[in-house]
Amino acid sequence: MTTSTDRNQQFYQLDKLIKDIGFGMLTTVDEDGSLHSRPMFVNNEIDFEGVLWFFTDARSHKVLEIQHRQQVNVSFSSLEKQQYISISGTAQLVTDHNKLQQLWQPELQTWFPKGLEEPDIALLKVNINKADYWDNRSSSQPQKII
Amino acid sequence: MTTSTDRNQQFYQLDKLIKDIGFGMLTTVDEDGSLHSRPMFVNNEIDFEGVLWFFTDARSHKVLEIQHRQQVNVSFSSLEKQQYISISGTAQLVTDHNKLQQLWQPELQTWFPKGLEEPDIALLKVNINKADYWDNRSSSQPQKII
Repeated sequence: MTTSTDRNQQFYQLDKLIKDIGFGMLTTVDEDGSLHSRPMFVNNEIDFEGVLWFFTDARSHKVLEIQHRQQVNVSFSSLEKQQYISISGTAQLVTDHNKLQQLWQPELQTWFPKGLEEPDIALLKVNINKADYWDNRSSSQPQKII
Repeated sequence: MTTSTDRNQQFYQLDKLIKDIGFGMLTTVDEDGSLHSRPMFVNNEIDFEGVLWFFTDARSHKVLEIQHRQQVNVSFSSLEKQQYISISGTAQLVTDHNKLQQLWQPELQTWFPKGLEEPDIALLKVNINKADYWDNRSSSQPQKII
């Protein structure tokens, strides 16, 4: 049985791994069934409920894809450390201003020059269902984190 | 109009980018619709027809997933260079011994210690339909390669 303390420990471990990497590739499914990915900046901790947050433009194509098919993958690769992570989850758009304010970080200005004043700034909330981790220095077999 | 020379040029450009990175994350769709990814070693050039080849164990779960849903994504991330690539394509299993022999490289022994004598060694053939490229040092907008 997985207790909530185990679960917190798992999210903490996952958070440490991805924060070292910083950019994840978010894969979504398009209406025609094709799979696309794009880099996403990780600027926040995974919260206790196992949620990954990304800032996005609400008009971007990935938002349309997610509204059509919620299932996504976020992968992380560190060539230097030979570490690879796969996160399976479901995504939804969040436009709540308080949440945007809470999660805003100055580094995001690279993509959102006007900050929280950008007209279509929003969040993608990814609920984590499963996470696997590979450390190719020690093994080619994945370790199940979540 | 895209001529076949343009196309070869595009595959050549893509090949150069991914060979520098060496490992891609292959994302597949499971029967329940969830998206999984895992690291795959790139040991061969993209051929003139725009095919990416990966060695695999024919009994692995990703092979089952591909038999169910051919659409895949292969993403490449270089944190050091801040370069990111998304390849959308369709995958199929190939067990042809001549092809296996043609593409075998000694580096693969890390995952296949018995080499081509491994009982279930096979190839995943990924036909590339689309490729996007991000260079975050210059822009956050993708460049369409294919």
